[in-house]
Amino acid sequence: MAEKSDVIFVGNKPPMSYVLAIITAFSESNTKEITLKARGQAITTAVDVAEIARSRFIKDLKVTCIAIGTAEMPPREGENRSRMVSTIEITLSKA
Amino acid sequence: MAEKSDVIFVGNKPPMSYVLAIITAFSESNTKEITLKARGQAITTAVDVAEIARSRFIKDLKVTCIAIGTAEMPPREGENRSRMVSTIEITLSKA
Repeated sequence: MAEKSDVIFVGNKPPMSYVLAIITAFSESNTKEITLKARGQAITTAVDVAEIARSRFIKDLKVTCIAIGTAEMPPREGENRSRMVSTIEITLSKA
Repeated sequence: MAEKSDVIFVGNKPPMSYVLAIITAFSESNTKEITLKARGQAITTAVDVAEIARSRFIKDLKVTCIAIGTAEMPPREGENRSRMVSTIEITLSKA
């Protein structure tokens, strides 16, 4: 099998659910790299998840890339203008 | 004068106050580089600030480095254990 790169979307669940998803992804397949994607308030959660996974669970995990950006979201109900939200992508690799 | 590297701590003020601080720092002195530092929920604000400054105000601004980490905070009143909070450092450079 080729090496896979998985994507985990971080939302508003507790950080530990995403940490568990990372651990599962690394242990079940031959995944070498996982990218966490988040936007808006979940950006903080994504950073928490990366830090918890790295410091407490997977010792040889490294943050290899962090990128920030902006995404356009459709307007809320009753509003006319689309909203801009910040995004983050954190790539984690196992040595 | 030598080139300076400024640090702006991002807290819970509206993002635009920090964007203004960045614009001021770049225009008043010969600052070439500014580092935004934030922790906890302010991480999202720091990303917003970097994105707003870059896309709307300073066209030649580049994100040159993003680092995440963990800091230990003293326990809240009535608690015994110190808390761990995530941190972010975003370095912005003007071409």
